Amino acid sequence: MMISAEQIQEGNKRLVDHHKEEYKLISDLLTHKGINPDRTIEHLSDFQIAIPSWALGSGGTRFGRFSIGGEPRNLQEKIEDVGLLHALNRSSGAISLHIPWDIPKDPEAIKQKAESLDIRFDAVNSNTFQDQKIQKHSYKNGSLSHTHSDVRKQAVEHNIEVIKYGEMLGSKALTIWLADGSNFPGQQNFRKAFRRTLDSMKKIYDELPSDWKMLIEYKPFEPNFYSTVIPDWGTSHLLASKLGDRAKSLVDLGHHLPNTNIEQIVATLIMENKLGGFHFNDSKYADDDLTTGAIKPYQLFLIFCELVEDLVSDDPDHTFSNIDWMIDASHNVKDPLEDLLQSVEAIKTAFAKSLLVDREKLEQAREDNDVVLAQEILQDAYQTDVRPLLRESRIQNGAAADPIGLYRKLNIRKSLIAERGVDTIATGL
Amino acid sequence: MMISAEQIQEGNKRLVDHHKEEYKLISDLLTHKGINPDRTIEHLSDFQIAIPSWALGSGGTRFGRFSIGGEPRNLQEKIEDVGLLHALNRSSGAISLHIPWDIPKDPEAIKQKAESLDIRFDAVNSNTFQDQKIQKHSYKNGSLSHTHSDVRKQAVEHNIEVIKYGEMLGSKALTIWLADGSNFPGQQNFRKAFRRTLDSMKKIYDELPSDWKMLIEYKPFEPNFYSTVIPDWGTSHLLASKLGDRAKSLVDLGHHLPNTNIEQIVATLIMENKLGGFHFNDSKYADDDLTTGAIKPYQLFLIFCELVEDLVSDDPDHTFSNIDWMIDASHNVKDPLEDLLQSVEAIKTAFAKSLLVDREKLEQAREDNDVVLAQEILQDAYQTDVRPLLRESRIQNGAAADPIGLYRKLNIRKSLIAERGVDTIATGL
Amino acid sequence: MMISAEQIQEGNKRLVDHHKEEYKLISDLLTHKGINPDRTIEHLSDFQIAIPSWALGSGGTRFGRFSIGGEPRNLQEKIEDVGLLHALNRSSGAISLHIPWDIPKDPEAIKQKAESLDIRFDAVNSNTFQDQKIQKHSYKNGSLSHTHSDVRKQAVEHNIEVIKYGEMLGSKALTIWLADGSNFPGQQNFRKAFRRTLDSMKKIYDELPSDWKMLIEYKPFEPNFYSTVIPDWGTSHLLASKLGDRAKSLVDLGHHLPNTNIEQIVATLIMENKLGGFHFNDSKYADDDLTTGAIKPYQLFLIFCELVEDLVSDDPDHTFSNIDWMIDASHNVKDPLEDLLQSVEAIKTAFAKSLLVDREKLEQAREDNDVVLAQEILQDAYQTDVRPLLRESRIQNGAAADPIGLYRKLNIRKSLIAERGVDTIATGL
Amino acid sequence: MMISAEQIQEGNKRLVDHHKEEYKLISDLLTHKGINPDRTIEHLSDFQIAIPSWALGSGGTRFGRFSIGGEPRNLQEKIEDVGLLHALNRSSGAISLHIPWDIPKDPEAIKQKAESLDIRFDAVNSNTFQDQKIQKHSYKNGSLSHTHSDVRKQAVEHNIEVIKYGEMLGSKALTIWLADGSNFPGQQNFRKAFRRTLDSMKKIYDELPSDWKMLIEYKPFEPNFYSTVIPDWGTSHLLASKLGDRAKSLVDLGHHLPNTNIEQIVATLIMENKLGGFHFNDSKYADDDLTTGAIKPYQLFLIFCELVEDLVSDDPDHTFSNIDWMIDASHNVKDPLEDLLQSVEAIKTAFAKSLLVDREKLEQAREDNDVVLAQEILQDAYQTDVRPLLRESRIQNGAAADPIGLYRKLNIRKSLIAERGVDTIATGL
Repeated sequence: MMISAEQIQEGNKRLVDHHKEEYKLISDLLTHKGINPDRTIEHLSDFQIAIPSWALGSGGTRFGRFSIGGEPRNLQEKIEDVGLLHALNRSSGAISLHIPWDIPKDPEAIKQKAESLDIRFDAVNSNTFQDQKIQKHSYKNGSLSHTHSDVRKQAVEHNIEVIKYGEMLGSKALTIWLADGSNFPGQQNFRKAFRRTLDSMKKIYDELPSDWKMLIEYKPFEPNFYSTVIPDWGTSHLLASKLGDRAKSLVDLGHHLPNTNIEQIVATLIMENKLGGFHFNDSKYADDDLTTGAIKPYQLFLIFCELVEDLVSDDPDHTFSNIDWMIDASHNVKDPLEDLLQSVEAIKTAFAKSLLVDREKLEQAREDNDVVLAQEILQDAYQTDVRPLLRESRIQNGAAADPIGLYRKLNIRKSLIAERGVDTIATGL
Repeated sequence: MMISAEQIQEGNKRLVDHHKEEYKLISDLLTHKGINPDRTIEHLSDFQIAIPSWALGSGGTRFGRFSIGGEPRNLQEKIEDVGLLHALNRSSGAISLHIPWDIPKDPEAIKQKAESLDIRFDAVNSNTFQDQKIQKHSYKNGSLSHTHSDVRKQAVEHNIEVIKYGEMLGSKALTIWLADGSNFPGQQNFRKAFRRTLDSMKKIYDELPSDWKMLIEYKPFEPNFYSTVIPDWGTSHLLASKLGDRAKSLVDLGHHLPNTNIEQIVATLIMENKLGGFHFNDSKYADDDLTTGAIKPYQLFLIFCELVEDLVSDDPDHTFSNIDWMIDASHNVKDPLEDLLQSVEAIKTAFAKSLLVDREKLEQAREDNDVVLAQEILQDAYQTDVRPLLRESRIQNGAAADPIGLYRKLNIRKSLIAERGVDTIATGL
Repeated sequence: MMISAEQIQEGNKRLVDHHKEEYKLISDLLTHKGINPDRTIEHLSDFQIAIPSWALGSGGTRFGRFSIGGEPRNLQEKIEDVGLLHALNRSSGAISLHIPWDIPKDPEAIKQKAESLDIRFDAVNSNTFQDQKIQKHSYKNGSLSHTHSDVRKQAVEHNIEVIKYGEMLGSKALTIWLADGSNFPGQQNFRKAFRRTLDSMKKIYDELPSDWKMLIEYKPFEPNFYSTVIPDWGTSHLLASKLGDRAKSLVDLGHHLPNTNIEQIVATLIMENKLGGFHFNDSKYADDDLTTGAIKPYQLFLIFCELVEDLVSDDPDHTFSNIDWMIDASHNVKDPLEDLLQSVEAIKTAFAKSLLVDREKLEQAREDNDVVLAQEILQDAYQTDVRPLLRESRIQNGAAADPIGLYRKLNIRKSLIAERGVDTIATGL
Repeated sequence: MMISAEQIQEGNKRLVDHHKEEYKLISDLLTHKGINPDRTIEHLSDFQIAIPSWALGSGGTRFGRFSIGGEPRNLQEKIEDVGLLHALNRSSGAISLHIPWDIPKDPEAIKQKAESLDIRFDAVNSNTFQDQKIQKHSYKNGSLSHTHSDVRKQAVEHNIEVIKYGEMLGSKALTIWLADGSNFPGQQNFRKAFRRTLDSMKKIYDELPSDWKMLIEYKPFEPNFYSTVIPDWGTSHLLASKLGDRAKSLVDLGHHLPNTNIEQIVATLIMENKLGGFHFNDSKYADDDLTTGAIKPYQLFLIFCELVEDLVSDDPDHTFSNIDWMIDASHNVKDPLEDLLQSVEAIKTAFAKSLLVDREKLEQAREDNDVVLAQEILQDAYQTDVRPLLRESRIQNGAAADPIGLYRKLNIRKSLIAERGVDTIATGL
């Protein structure tokens, strides 16, 4: 299933005239403010957000899973789904794979399929939080941090295998997320568990190609947990520092305790040159894996203000261009593809707004401790309706003016169900 | 599989002498403080905590489930497992069933089985948070609160059916826990959802036998949620008030926002005569369903202080004796039976300690605003080692002096695996 | 100190032309969507938010207080400050007084002063959380809930006295916020404390004029607390229900546990006809009393979506028009007047956006469980830049097109310091 | 005011007999378990907890302060108060001073006074979170992180001055707690603020005597804040790492986001040899500064389990013996001296219980992933009533068997009021 350039053009027709008017207005406004609209569009067009292979089907909870139908049955179809998204928004030109869910049986064919859709392979993810049928040792009591060396060895080897798969496809990063930890006080020796984890990671790091990054996730808790081995950015940073320059922290927006100031963590990691990647999503209570921007859009904007500060700085060694941008969400009640279109739109909205912040005036207000003015400057950017900018960027790049509208008009889900069936279950969460 | 009285006696032999010494000491101490040890033992012996049928096998998360082996394969075997617990501690003389997981095909045989093990049937639980294969309408978008009347009707009928099963077995309460709610802002009209829920509950309440209670759980969030239809005690209480005298709130310890003062909620519900039941468990972050008392034993003690205030009051209409005491936990890394033994022990420990509070002195200290003294009085009870009291109560009732010790010595799990197999999966969470 | 109509006109001159263009655009957009722009402007113009008398000076913490200078030295000057705000935005036509900080020595003169500035008196607030020098009994251990009847009596009489002052000035509501509670487990008998509070409130309610409301605040904690007497909406609602129709709950946005879904509480209270008032502010961690909309503007929008649902409903008995809208903030690092201008702007922004929600389509999407569409509808309103609407409403009402800009241009703070001195300290927090 | 050895002896008389019985029992129990009771008593006797000079008077909130009377009026009297505590429990043999509240005018006399009471000087604390009258620049907008170099310079010089005072008295550590941060998004450039802070700290570190430590506190928020310059252990650790070996992190139990696993942070800092000190207190919601152990005694025990793991390890370079143990609390409704006696008792209770953990069995259970057993081992220690151990340690050291009982019996507060007056206000929080 593909969407053709003609379908896009046809869909855009009725929207273009009104859009041109709207775009002219904001374009004038930006120019008036001394912001180059073309440069802004360029930034937006360049910005690509990887789609997680595991979020193309319906997600589930411990209670159940309600399938949407037409879910991709294999890696080929997952890439096709990302192709659909990318055709619609030209901002989803990458996919992030999860091994063993996405082992490419014919890597060459997979690569070609992806290339044909203009999709590259972002970070590959290992999985040591589930037992696979063929697996010798269970991860029930941990993986890289396990008390038994043979389990750790198995987990290390799995990660090295994941790197191999990634190399076949052109990935440049390995993401490690551990569900290692403990469920009860006393269960785990914290210090020994950390040291075993570090030791295991060193073995993986040693096998990391020189142009790769190792992205280390942190997360304070999972349901039913008392502690995790890498609970916070501090621990992730500690591990990354001990491992070397290519080890970086990955910030998943949902992996924080209540009320955490995430934008400050982002700033600190940028400052230390240790921010390697993002998992975008949103949440109200815990790691809810909801559509990005659905709950706290202003927080997302504040995070992008930190990122843009780096992007526009004179520093030749920008962190921004070396960050892996990925979504990590779970789609329990929405069509996964619609949900991903909403997430990408929200991320780019936050990015666009943060590009409009008058940074010079802001730094002056900060220097002067003019708190009211600093807030006014941020709010001025945030209150601006940037949808015409995003639309312009899409139209310029041959994408849909209204991605969800077109997705529905073309009845994509219905076609997918016709093609794949109603009872399909994508591998993933 | 059963544990015989002889096995218990045999196991206790080597422990009894040392116990007698320890018991004499605390017994003297209590008498010295003006507390009747026999009366305390009596309270402890009377206190029975229902075991949830759904927690006798290994629990799981959205990632996976690691079976322990020897899990009960049907209702008969679930009752046998509770029989094992009750034989070991004589405090687990009740089981709480979940329909449709536990539909009794031959109710008479089930009742006899339970009676033979001295086990009664506590509240029955309906399930409208999962779809069953034979079910006509899906609960993906809600059940009692659903926008479509035919789904609500199906859910109401299911609840009425659950009452029927409960009646067959001698239950006297229906517990309703809803996973109804919304995942995103805007998705649900809060007011309409509440009214539809109330309307559905009225239909169920109308079918409630006159000597039954309807227990209404509240919970602020599930993973992936933005709102639930009954998020807090206030909403549960509002529903219960509108329904009638037999509708009560059920407090699940894990169903609260961070930092909630649960003991105060318990006090308020007792005061309003609206506390109907408890789901015991413990948690550090969210609804972790961990072993009761494993994380916040002092909070559990404070909750029991509120309950004991009611128990020992002159009020002829005690709430205490009308409360359904149940565990609701999930056992992901422990043997479920050992976990349940630990939970029961922790609950009774908190109960025993709260029975030792010098209430007269406490009320005087409160009256005098002597904050230091009030704390000293609570701490004096809490610091007391009450294990000899619990042990004495067990021994007097023919239970094991050391339940977990005996469980391990008798190799119960090994026998269960031999009997039932290693790959069994109990229905439940 | 006053701002004249001429100063406003003069200040608006250079902004009006550009504004007209912007307004035309959004006005066309609204018309296109079937929304009447004039009706929207009318709603905005009608909406008045009371300024708290206690927030016109710099706030403090337990560590210190950094004065801004020129703070109002008495009630007269506080009303003048609100007059300045109202002149600038025509949305602050009310003041909320705090007794004993604001006892009107010459009520008639005060009333005239307020009338001359087009300001009315919103809810009056009692204060039993601080000891006054002339006071017989201390509130150290509580006020309306105190264990001693003479302290309770004093607190009741104070509240009745506050009503009397309110009547002199034309207030129609009494707001009760209690700092009663306990700092340590055991300190307070929860049930007795609730009953004493209810009993005290009944005595106050009995003295409430028939056209008055009693607004009952709730708050889960203060620094150094273990419990409060009215911790949540449920307790506030319980009290209000027992007191009678004129007793209502007041929602202070900062008075909730982490992650609380406040918009749902608002919906529930509206449904029960028990929502009496708002204290607007914003917060990241606890009751931070920050500028409204500075941290969670989307949450504010969602709250207003609930309020607007009531406003536009056919129900003849709207809650909306009977709600007292008040700011409750503390200004530690900003000029209080600038801060209040920002808060009012943020509140009206949220209100304006929620007026743009296509409610008919939203209800249909909800009915259809079309979660994606429901979110799109909310986001469409939220992403709209409504600043031209607010500006138009201000200009139509003779207020400043750019209130903070004009405030700074006119050097108001400098004039206030010249008039009142640099070391003034306004009574308040 | 002093308590004499005779008063202590006299007070203990009536308690000693019963104590001997109780002590014999637990002593036998310990011996039976292979634990040397004398060694345990020795550990307890050695353990001294510094009393904060600022917590000897009543604390306050932004609303008010309710004096207890008889509060120390100067440094001399503060030391006397600590002398009273130390006489009663022989565990409070140190005081932690706060400059400028406690500037020693006659250091020699102060030293002698302290020596005469067997009290040494623990870490000295600087104060850049309040403006002093004589101060040139205000800290309203920060101190070590301020945008203006002259303010930073002033703050650096103050810290160096504090070191000088500490040297006069024999302190060996400087504690830096910053209230620097921001109240609103946009107000502060996070990266620049961090760098300015680091730069200022370097200047202080350069002046640190070679046998001193610099203790760096972290704290996520203050009331009215949006961010702090050092929000978490990760940031504190980052600063300490960049500064050098003598810079360490200080853990204040109240300085964490909701649900933080503090014991794991403690373990990590020990592992990195970066744990320098503790501020003990307890809290339910935020930084409540309540009596240690009053809310979460089990968490305190778990923290001590980490500390004891270090204490009993073979590592010649123990962190334990280099940690500064201090209380940091605020006493709003209790007599400060009674409150401090309760805190010290709770800390030593947690310490004593954690000394009883069978570490060998625990490590084996962990190695075996025997989660149930690991919990049983911790619980066995925690459930033990260790009060006879603490009492024995006190009696052996000439302290009171029942410190609070004796304090009350001797009417100390009454004598202090007689001596110092009822309206005294101690400098401090």
